[in-house]
Amino acid sequence: MAKEKPGIPKGTRDFDPLEISRREHIFNTIREVYRLHGFRPIETPAMENLSTLMGKYGEEGDRLIFRILNSGDFPSKVKEEDWQSRNASLISSRICEKALRYDLTVPFARYVVQHQHKITFPFKRYQMQPVWRADKPQKGRYREFFQCDADVIGSDSLANEAEIMQIIDKVFSQLNIDVIIKINNRKILAGLAGLIGFPDRFTEITTAIDKTDKIGLENVSRELIDRGLTKEAVDKLLPVLELTGTNHEKIQMLQDLLSSSELGMQGLSEVQEVFDIVEVTPLHCRLELDLCLARGLNYYTGAIIEVKSADVNIGSLCGGGRYDDLTGIFGLPGVSGVGISFGADRIYDVLQALSRFPDSTGTFSQVLAINFGPVERNYCLPALENLRSIGVQCEMYPEPAKIKKQLQYADKNNIPFVLMAGEEEMKKKLFSLKDMRTGDQQQLMLEQITDVLMKYFDR
Amino acid sequence: MAKEKPGIPKGTRDFDPLEISRREHIFNTIREVYRLHGFRPIETPAMENLSTLMGKYGEEGDRLIFRILNSGDFPSKVKEEDWQSRNASLISSRICEKALRYDLTVPFARYVVQHQHKITFPFKRYQMQPVWRADKPQKGRYREFFQCDADVIGSDSLANEAEIMQIIDKVFSQLNIDVIIKINNRKILAGLAGLIGFPDRFTEITTAIDKTDKIGLENVSRELIDRGLTKEAVDKLLPVLELTGTNHEKIQMLQDLLSSSELGMQGLSEVQEVFDIVEVTPLHCRLELDLCLARGLNYYTGAIIEVKSADVNIGSLCGGGRYDDLTGIFGLPGVSGVGISFGADRIYDVLQALSRFPDSTGTFSQVLAINFGPVERNYCLPALENLRSIGVQCEMYPEPAKIKKQLQYADKNNIPFVLMAGEEEMKKKLFSLKDMRTGDQQQLMLEQITDVLMKYFDR
Repeated sequence: MAKEKPGIPKGTRDFDPLEISRREHIFNTIREVYRLHGFRPIETPAMENLSTLMGKYGEEGDRLIFRILNSGDFPSKVKEEDWQSRNASLISSRICEKALRYDLTVPFARYVVQHQHKITFPFKRYQMQPVWRADKPQKGRYREFFQCDADVIGSDSLANEAEIMQIIDKVFSQLNIDVIIKINNRKILAGLAGLIGFPDRFTEITTAIDKTDKIGLENVSRELIDRGLTKEAVDKLLPVLELTGTNHEKIQMLQDLLSSSELGMQGLSEVQEVFDIVEVTPLHCRLELDLCLARGLNYYTGAIIEVKSADVNIGSLCGGGRYDDLTGIFGLPGVSGVGISFGADRIYDVLQALSRFPDSTGTFSQVLAINFGPVERNYCLPALENLRSIGVQCEMYPEPAKIKKQLQYADKNNIPFVLMAGEEEMKKKLFSLKDMRTGDQQQLMLEQITDVLMKYFDR
Repeated sequence: MAKEKPGIPKGTRDFDPLEISRREHIFNTIREVYRLHGFRPIETPAMENLSTLMGKYGEEGDRLIFRILNSGDFPSKVKEEDWQSRNASLISSRICEKALRYDLTVPFARYVVQHQHKITFPFKRYQMQPVWRADKPQKGRYREFFQCDADVIGSDSLANEAEIMQIIDKVFSQLNIDVIIKINNRKILAGLAGLIGFPDRFTEITTAIDKTDKIGLENVSRELIDRGLTKEAVDKLLPVLELTGTNHEKIQMLQDLLSSSELGMQGLSEVQEVFDIVEVTPLHCRLELDLCLARGLNYYTGAIIEVKSADVNIGSLCGGGRYDDLTGIFGLPGVSGVGISFGADRIYDVLQALSRFPDSTGTFSQVLAINFGPVERNYCLPALENLRSIGVQCEMYPEPAKIKKQLQYADKNNIPFVLMAGEEEMKKKLFSLKDMRTGDQQQLMLEQITDVLMKYFDR
């Protein structure tokens, strides 16, 4: 067989042991916090029926879905006329019945409807799995990436929004990342669109507002005028978007402005209630009402949530919101839910930029036993089993190679301790333990070694 | 949009919270043991270049690889002549460049070659990821399933085989499954083929022998004769395959039989050495030399390993062996390795059949706080945060629903304790804690509650 130069598809990644341990630090933290709040895990298959996914992510989304070719003699199943059309979209719908998961939300909606009779509502579920998108790969954007979602569905209580704030706060505290949680509400934005006299231009207005962070308010107002708003309307809107002060002050000013908008007032009262519940057990991080937060408004119907790093300018680390009809498309209408999704890749980049990964990530073996030959090896093996029984990760170098090579192995694999036993140690029933950082070496009994290790690894 | 009846592709599965917690029990046990032995994790992408996978799994394997349709206007990239051929194999090679991971071994080989300059050998890696095969789905066989592999490559020491026995033993001890580890060696089988005068019929002989478990020795001998072996040869082979006694006795008898076969004697000495090293720290389970074990001989070159349940007749729970040239196909020859793969689905079925899943699997929230209204909710929320800070998983029912409904929620979600506080408890600064199994209910201080819970959950 021919030799091939090995590589992987663009936009995909291999993860080495150090990267895996750092990613696990992130995933484990998120999972642990989800569980502390009573969320329950589900998993769905990597492949869904194509019909489950199509039409759920807009036209652009449909194009970015990876399709899986039908097995067997797929061309024979296509009508001659269709085959001769050579039309990509038509033919792909004839030769592909399955596609790769594009996000976790649509499969979750499908899951809830399919298994509705065995689910107890409200259903608090989390799901941490990879998704695939045929997006153009670029820095920080991959064709395979992980999503870490949690949703509560079947309850419209705002206590759920408050709990999500607690979860976000806990995850980032434990990861040692300082963040700002931004919150807004679709109903406030709808009230504002009414206030300035353009209630029917909600989509254009919010699409423009959402860019404030990137292009600034001046450009946003220019865009609004380009899109047909009057100067008067924009002049009325801008000071509202520029509102400063505490959340309480912002809400008070908005209550005056929006007093005639029932929807707007409802949005404000929802935000106020979330703040009130959150304050019962105050957050570590800052929680901020941000009227320019206007993402995801083709599905969010109430709260909109976004989390940013206070130290690294990298975009959103986590986002979410409330939606009123997740499962309607699959035949179960009227199920309200609220959810969030953590972006593991961005969180990784922030931890990397701030050097905040724990020192323990990247250490696998904690002890390497040097192999001087069969007799010495057999003397050390029971000691290693003993260490494992108390949770120490350790290994024996598999062959009696030169000691320099074995020490290099310890060094390159970031193994902090080396265990050795030659004739002298065996006679005394001792072991030499070498600390690879300091170079210190002492002859110890096995029990003393476990003490040293327990202390070092802080168990 | 039209309503669709939700479903998933055949051969794939949704996992509900109970199933996830049981699967995690299996995965965590295997991962923990791999780590105790100094193995390091890697992950590879779900999609590989099609050319990386093709030709690695035989003709049948090639057909079972799931191909991913190229994005964009894929038909326009196919030559008219090819398109008109309507030949499935030809066209799929023109419209698909990527495919789904079929196993973990080939991606691992590709990984090692691609990243060889940053890998320290011997490289002990583990990898636990899903794989996909377009196999006909049937009971216990899925199109998406998980593999849990560990390999040591770049070392031909038999200490690695011995370590793998220790790993298998530890995993199944911790899972509380009684198993038999079967071991054989390709070289012994080659010696036997020589002994009976048919060294060039190695593949036919071993393919037949491998079926002994399923069809019995009588049918195996019939098959061997059908395949052109003489009756004399089969009569010489059968008593060897029927050898009983201890491993030591079997090896002694084989040493007499194979004394003239250099290869056979080498195989025996390898098996003996593995047994000798294993005995330094004896196993809990039975380790058995089984001459009928002859699987995977198109890639295994030394040890062959298989694990079976002692109690449930369900096929192999774990398999592996030594291969001498894993990475040659990708341009890095001469790298010897030995590895194993645990079959999580079969292990799941055995634990299910024996009712050996720990009681804790399936419990997520440990405490549900009943929501009597905003005041009572706000009284309980800090207590829940307090419980979470010591690791108790707990939740507040999101709205002040009827208490019967809230208790049903606890019941259906397998939540063992319910926390309640009404006017009386709030006045006394206490909480009522109800044990859902016994129905017992007591008024306690928060510190007393943490004591009860710590004791119950054995922390």
